[in-house]
Amino acid sequence: MKIAISIGDPNGVGLEILLKNHKRIKKLCTPVYCVDKDLLRSAAKKLSLKISKSWICKPPLAKLPKIIPGEINRESGAYAYASFLQALNLTLEGEAKALVTLPIHKKAWQLAKIPYAGHTEVLRDVLKEYIQKSEQKEKKEKKENNQAIMMLGSPKLYVALFSDHIPLKEVPPLINTESIMSFLLSFAPHVLKTPCGVLGLNPHAGDFGVLGNEENAIKEAISLANASLGKEVYIGPLVPDTAFIGKHLRYYVAMYHDQGLIPLKTLYFKDSINITLNIPIIRTSVDHGTAFDIAYKNKAESKSYINAIKEAILRAKSQSSKF
Amino acid sequence: MKIAISIGDPNGVGLEILLKNHKRIKKLCTPVYCVDKDLLRSAAKKLSLKISKSWICKPPLAKLPKIIPGEINRESGAYAYASFLQALNLTLEGEAKALVTLPIHKKAWQLAKIPYAGHTEVLRDVLKEYIQKSEQKEKKEKKENNQAIMMLGSPKLYVALFSDHIPLKEVPPLINTESIMSFLLSFAPHVLKTPCGVLGLNPHAGDFGVLGNEENAIKEAISLANASLGKEVYIGPLVPDTAFIGKHLRYYVAMYHDQGLIPLKTLYFKDSINITLNIPIIRTSVDHGTAFDIAYKNKAESKSYINAIKEAILRAKSQSSKF
Repeated sequence: MKIAISIGDPNGVGLEILLKNHKRIKKLCTPVYCVDKDLLRSAAKKLSLKISKSWICKPPLAKLPKIIPGEINRESGAYAYASFLQALNLTLEGEAKALVTLPIHKKAWQLAKIPYAGHTEVLRDVLKEYIQKSEQKEKKEKKENNQAIMMLGSPKLYVALFSDHIPLKEVPPLINTESIMSFLLSFAPHVLKTPCGVLGLNPHAGDFGVLGNEENAIKEAISLANASLGKEVYIGPLVPDTAFIGKHLRYYVAMYHDQGLIPLKTLYFKDSINITLNIPIIRTSVDHGTAFDIAYKNKAESKSYINAIKEAILRAKSQSSKF
Repeated sequence: MKIAISIGDPNGVGLEILLKNHKRIKKLCTPVYCVDKDLLRSAAKKLSLKISKSWICKPPLAKLPKIIPGEINRESGAYAYASFLQALNLTLEGEAKALVTLPIHKKAWQLAKIPYAGHTEVLRDVLKEYIQKSEQKEKKEKKENNQAIMMLGSPKLYVALFSDHIPLKEVPPLINTESIMSFLLSFAPHVLKTPCGVLGLNPHAGDFGVLGNEENAIKEAISLANASLGKEVYIGPLVPDTAFIGKHLRYYVAMYHDQGLIPLKTLYFKDSINITLNIPIIRTSVDHGTAFDIAYKNKAESKSYINAIKEAILRAKSQSSKF
C-alpha cells in the first residue's frame, strides 16, 4: 500500500524522523516521500546518516532550500507547502491510499505568502469541491455534517472534538441536539471500537441540572444517533473528570478542545497523533510541532510518526474493506 | 498531634477504612474518632475485625444507628451529620489541630432533614462568623478574598479551583484581573512548592488572542500577585493541554472544575484528596464517596484516607511553624 508523505519544514525535525524510520516504515507500506533526493542527502549528511537506494521520492514543485536548522524562513515555508500539495495530489488522484503529514511552521508559511494558516485550512478549501460533488452524487438523507472532524489519538485512546479551535466561551452556545446528533452520525463510521463515550459539558455532567443543563441536549442527541444507527455506538453523557480513570474506553467525543486533549496528552503525549476525518481522503499527522530547538540534534521522537503511519494504513484497510 | 475524624455515613465504607488503618494512623498522629465505641464494635464484627483499647472516641450527640450496609436512611444521615459537627467543634475549640472527614451521603442528610447539602455548605455557614471576626481583628489591607478555596490533590499534584461547582458557561465571565489576583493572593500561603502554574482559559492559552483573550487578564493578575508577594510564586498562563505532561509542576490553579480535575483524577485517582483552604481551620477529606456498593465487603481503598490524614498533619505543622 502506497502512503504519500509530506516532509514538513526542512529546518525542523521532519527529515530526521523520515530518515531514521525509513527501514521500519518500508516494512509496513510503500512510502512515497514528497521531497527532492538532494535535500534528503543533505539532511542525512547533517545527521551523519546514509541513505539507501530504496527511497521513492516525488519532488515537489519548489526551489530546493538550504537547510538551516531551526531557522524560520520563506524558502523552507514554500518548500513545505509544495511538499504537502504534492502529497495531497497523489492521494486525491488515488496514487497513494493515504496522506501522512509532518509538521510545518505557520510563520514560515506566512513569510512565503501561502494563503493558508496551516494544513487543515488547505484541506478544508481544496476538499470542499470534492465534498460537494460526493454529496450531490449520494444525495444523502441522513443529517450528517460536512465539516472535517478533528480527532486526536494514540492506539489506546482516541478523542474526537465536537468543537476545536474556538474560545471557550463560544462552546456552550453550540451545544444543541441537532448539531451534536449530526456530529455523532458523521463520526460513527470512524469509531472502530464501540461504545464511544460522549462527555458532558459541565462539572459532574451537570449533576441532574444543578450545574448546567446542556447535558439534556447531549443525552437526546446520543439516543437519536443510536436509534438512527440501529445500535448503541454512543454512551453518555459521561462525567468528564472520571471518564478517563483506569481502564478507559477507546473512543470519546469531547465537547471542547481541552476536555479531550488534556487527558489524551497527559496520558499518551509521545504516542499521540492527529487524524482528519469526514473528508474524502485519509489523512493523519504527527501531534507535535517542528521542534526547531532540537532540529538536527539526533533528539527527535519517532513514536508519533510511526503511529501516524500505522493509523493511516489501518484506516485505509478499513475503508477498502467496506467496498 | 490530635486530629478529629468524622466517620461519614455508617452504612458506607467510612468505618471499614477507619478500622483497617487505625494502627497505621496512630503512628502519625493521635486520632480522635467522633463515633460511639458500640458502633465501632458492630462495624468490626461485620468485617470480622478486632478492635484494640487504643481508640480515643468522642461520641456524637445522636441516636446510635443500626448498620445496614449500603442503605440510605434517616438514622445514618443524622449520625453522620452529628459526627461531623462533633469533629468540627473539636477543631474549632483547638482540641484537635485539624479535621479529616469521611464521605457522607447527601440523600441521607436530606432524609434526616439536615439543612445543608454537604460538608462544604456547613463549613461555609458555621465558619462565616469566625471569618468575619478574624477579618475585623486583622483589618487586612491586602485584597484577598474570603471564600473557601477548594483544592484537590495527591502528594504529587495539587490543583486549586478558581471556579468550582458552576455551569461551564458561567466561567468565562468570571475571569478578570481583580478576581484572579485576589484568588492568587489568598491561595499563595498554601503553595508549599513554587512555582505554581496558573492555567489559561482557552485552547492553546488563547494563541496570542486568536482563540480568546481572557489570558490577558490572567497574565496581568499573575504579575500583580507576584509583585505583591515579592517573589515569583506563580507562572503562566500555561497552555492547558500540555501543562500536565511528563514531570509536571506540584501546584496548579485551574480556571474551572474539569480543567483541574480531569488531569488530577486521570493521573492520581486513588491517591487523591480534597482540601478546603482559606478557612480558619485545617480540613481535609477523602476524594471519593460512600461507595455503598462495596460497603462492608472488605474492598474499600485506603490510599485517599491515609493521604488526607498526612496532608492534615503537614498543613497543621506548616501553620504552627508560622507563629
